[in-house]
Amino acid sequence: MTTSPKTRIYVLDTTLRDGTQGEAVSFSVEDKLAIAEKLDQLGIDYIEGGWPGSNPKDKEFFERARHLNLKHAKLAAFGSTRFAKHTVETDPNVRCLLEAQTPAVCVFGKTWDLHTRKALGVTEAENQVLIRETVGVLKRDGREVIFDAEHFFDGYKGNRDFALRALAAAAEAGADVLCLCDTNGGSMPNELAEIVSDVRSHFGGLIGIHTHDDSGVGVANSLTAVREGATHVQGCLNGYGERCGNANLASVIANLELKMGYEVLGSERLQNLTGVARFIADLANLPLPNGLPYVGQSAFAHKGGVHVAAVLKDAATYEHVSPETVGNRQRVLLSDLSGRGNIFYKLKEHGLEERLSDESRRVLLEQIKQLEYEGYELEAAEGTFELLVREALYPELKFFEVVNIETTTRMSDSLSPLTTATVTLKVNGGTHSHTGIGHGPVNALDECLRSCLSQHYPEIKRVALTDYKVRVLDNKKGTAAKVRVLVEWTDHEKSWATVGVSENVIEASWRALADAIRLELMRLHDSGGAAVAEPTAAAGY
Amino acid sequence: MTTSPKTRIYVLDTTLRDGTQGEAVSFSVEDKLAIAEKLDQLGIDYIEGGWPGSNPKDKEFFERARHLNLKHAKLAAFGSTRFAKHTVETDPNVRCLLEAQTPAVCVFGKTWDLHTRKALGVTEAENQVLIRETVGVLKRDGREVIFDAEHFFDGYKGNRDFALRALAAAAEAGADVLCLCDTNGGSMPNELAEIVSDVRSHFGGLIGIHTHDDSGVGVANSLTAVREGATHVQGCLNGYGERCGNANLASVIANLELKMGYEVLGSERLQNLTGVARFIADLANLPLPNGLPYVGQSAFAHKGGVHVAAVLKDAATYEHVSPETVGNRQRVLLSDLSGRGNIFYKLKEHGLEERLSDESRRVLLEQIKQLEYEGYELEAAEGTFELLVREALYPELKFFEVVNIETTTRMSDSLSPLTTATVTLKVNGGTHSHTGIGHGPVNALDECLRSCLSQHYPEIKRVALTDYKVRVLDNKKGTAAKVRVLVEWTDHEKSWATVGVSENVIEASWRALADAIRLELMRLHDSGGAAVAEPTAAAGY
Repeated sequence: MTTSPKTRIYVLDTTLRDGTQGEAVSFSVEDKLAIAEKLDQLGIDYIEGGWPGSNPKDKEFFERARHLNLKHAKLAAFGSTRFAKHTVETDPNVRCLLEAQTPAVCVFGKTWDLHTRKALGVTEAENQVLIRETVGVLKRDGREVIFDAEHFFDGYKGNRDFALRALAAAAEAGADVLCLCDTNGGSMPNELAEIVSDVRSHFGGLIGIHTHDDSGVGVANSLTAVREGATHVQGCLNGYGERCGNANLASVIANLELKMGYEVLGSERLQNLTGVARFIADLANLPLPNGLPYVGQSAFAHKGGVHVAAVLKDAATYEHVSPETVGNRQRVLLSDLSGRGNIFYKLKEHGLEERLSDESRRVLLEQIKQLEYEGYELEAAEGTFELLVREALYPELKFFEVVNIETTTRMSDSLSPLTTATVTLKVNGGTHSHTGIGHGPVNALDECLRSCLSQHYPEIKRVALTDYKVRVLDNKKGTAAKVRVLVEWTDHEKSWATVGVSENVIEASWRALADAIRLELMRLHDSGGAAVAEPTAAAGY
Repeated sequence: MTTSPKTRIYVLDTTLRDGTQGEAVSFSVEDKLAIAEKLDQLGIDYIEGGWPGSNPKDKEFFERARHLNLKHAKLAAFGSTRFAKHTVETDPNVRCLLEAQTPAVCVFGKTWDLHTRKALGVTEAENQVLIRETVGVLKRDGREVIFDAEHFFDGYKGNRDFALRALAAAAEAGADVLCLCDTNGGSMPNELAEIVSDVRSHFGGLIGIHTHDDSGVGVANSLTAVREGATHVQGCLNGYGERCGNANLASVIANLELKMGYEVLGSERLQNLTGVARFIADLANLPLPNGLPYVGQSAFAHKGGVHVAAVLKDAATYEHVSPETVGNRQRVLLSDLSGRGNIFYKLKEHGLEERLSDESRRVLLEQIKQLEYEGYELEAAEGTFELLVREALYPELKFFEVVNIETTTRMSDSLSPLTTATVTLKVNGGTHSHTGIGHGPVNALDECLRSCLSQHYPEIKRVALTDYKVRVLDNKKGTAAKVRVLVEWTDHEKSWATVGVSENVIEASWRALADAIRLELMRLHDSGGAAVAEPTAAAGY
């Protein structure tokens, strides 16, 4: 028996170019270089790094990117066909493309008659010359040329023959890929399918697809184009991009590979998909939306008691693929919809499932429902949940009592802010007090808390604060509003979060702070493990 | 000339039932009642309100919902077919469905042979009896019955004839709609099309579709099913729901109506789409993702200088539909990709376009780029942008100088937190100082600032703080991390935000606070308008 080989689909990630057009998306040159390396490791075929002719940051990126040691991916620079007022030799945009020295180049040109006349102010014949000459000069320089047919689908609907003739100009000049762009993201899958099929019947070479999500069908449009014969797909791994974003390349890749029988990254590298998506979100400093298909934190999260019970028996009942295939994991959420199955799952995650009695579990479930009612969010704050469990195991363990805490910040137009704090604790029968300064009140309290405890518990030094977020709960309620503070921590091996809720942001922050330290002391008590001292983060909270 | 009438597609919104399975989605009974009214006004045909047999909150909702005066929508209760161990008369779940007294009822039943055997532990014939009896008893009670065929597509792929016979049982018992559910969200559009088409050829009645977004094609799958003959579509307006969410009903409706020639809400009511989507997000207390198709804040936002220049000439160049058709609006963003066109657009929005010289605009653009570089986010903080413009117009206007500010918070295990603040300002040549307490440091500083200024500027009382968010910038940088504070304000007519960035959260908050007050004073100076005194919000920041 023989198996027919899978069709290989090539993918181009444009997070670093089209992605940065998204609202709030911004990368430094260092960020871009780090992302390019990650995309290469993931097995992405082309990395579109920027538009060197449009801004100095992108130009610098390509200069420095030459020193990257990419194992698989080809770097691509992006730019337009030459301007009508320049020759192909003197056009500054084309010169930037040549100077970027990338193995691949994406050239966008007009294929919509209206745009050609209105935006460029040239005739059809002149437009074809712009395309032919720009593609030609890059081919003669030995580059792989991807021709991005801007507004192709709108252009085709307006004037099919014009659009096809513009593609033909690029093909005749040697373009390696004719990439059809749904620039405004307005096409429906069925019309896109007909158009790609028509193009396919006219051109023998590689057809590409570049879609946007303005109609919520960007991923489906990419898949549809592949079914109609496209073998090159452009998108952004996290769906960044102008307006509603580019097609989410993570979803496209996972669907092609796991559902439709194509070969893209291969099953081994596909397991890095979630990790790379989160890495990019971290550098963009944007939270990865929980509900993102395949890679989101909620993509395999179960909440309702009935679903959880079924999933614990057989994951396929409510999971379309195994989360491990894309490097994600199953999660069971705690909430007022929780049943005992959810608690059991969580206990198992922390290796504590055997240690709590049925009655203790029931009490814990009630306690969780009460805290969630008060505005705590234990789904996000796994550290606080773990502390609750450990407190149920060792109700007598307190470690420290708070006698008094105090923090003051002073500033003026002429003086920089100065924050001081004093923390006084009872520890092991003695009273310890420490006063110090900090970058902000939370940082100052953190420093003082650690100083008070360090004599008895030197191990807590290794716990460091990595993120701090404040959100107002029920902001419709005006004067009675509470704030929720979520703090993220690391011990350089694992990460967790603790949460505090109060009408006072300092109190809410202190609760999250003290709970994180108490949790670490509980863990140490349970394991008896030694600790490595490392400096703590000290951001300006 | 005659035009053929448009096919009418009926939509069911399940935000209040399936939507609440989403991570972090939670509604009070009051929230649910308010959302039901909004969905009715929007023209949604069916509102699935909850599962009365599963929890007391949903039961209470249906009791109270009887007093809603819905003009158009039919309320629907959700529940399962009867349990095998009960008769249809004694089954508590069926009884809850009857007691909910809704005109429509959604009953879900098994159509996957594996689930039938494993989860229910019954034979095919017994399963058909459960379906027939449950649908039958509800029909005899005069209800419109929508049969939700759970896991239909997975079931069909596993055993087509079993799945079709289960549907036939529901149809024979009088179900008004056979709704095909892609419960795990794993189907690709092409396979779904074939299956819907096959079902269509076997059943004469109404076919429905219920999809999830686990593969990123939930919207496309709904549209595909409609093209294959489904006329009833289920989804959630903001795409809430378990895991990756249900199909986003806002995108489905807009595509059906604006792109595919179907009639759903009608063009007039469609203009409320964005407003209702944001209303639901507000009650869910979740930010509406900026990039949501049609209704998101970025859906018609333009950032790159080239795009902005084109859009200002002709919006159709980069907008697939007119934003007004769905009640959204065009936005132009400020960032380091901005050109002068962006600044001009923003000035026009604030009615200030005629008042700044070319040179002042150039200086302003440089100032904006510098602030963005430091971590300010002027896209979100339109108030801070407006203040920059007004400062450029009146460089001599200062209103007040800060001599000193100070805030202290004290607490212990036994004492609730107490926050005090002192603010000393120079105003109109005199020095004013005020000391007071607050729910938190920002609230205390806000109160003191207003007290110092109230003698000279009583109008600032009408400005109230409505939201407060803190985020860490560059959290990879450890000790050097800055925080960005975004504060939202209202004067009960319009809303705006100001932003402050610093290594100290108190300083960053103060900057946003003082800028908001300064902006209001600038506006009053410009308009000479009188002010209405209203109490300010005083949350615990």
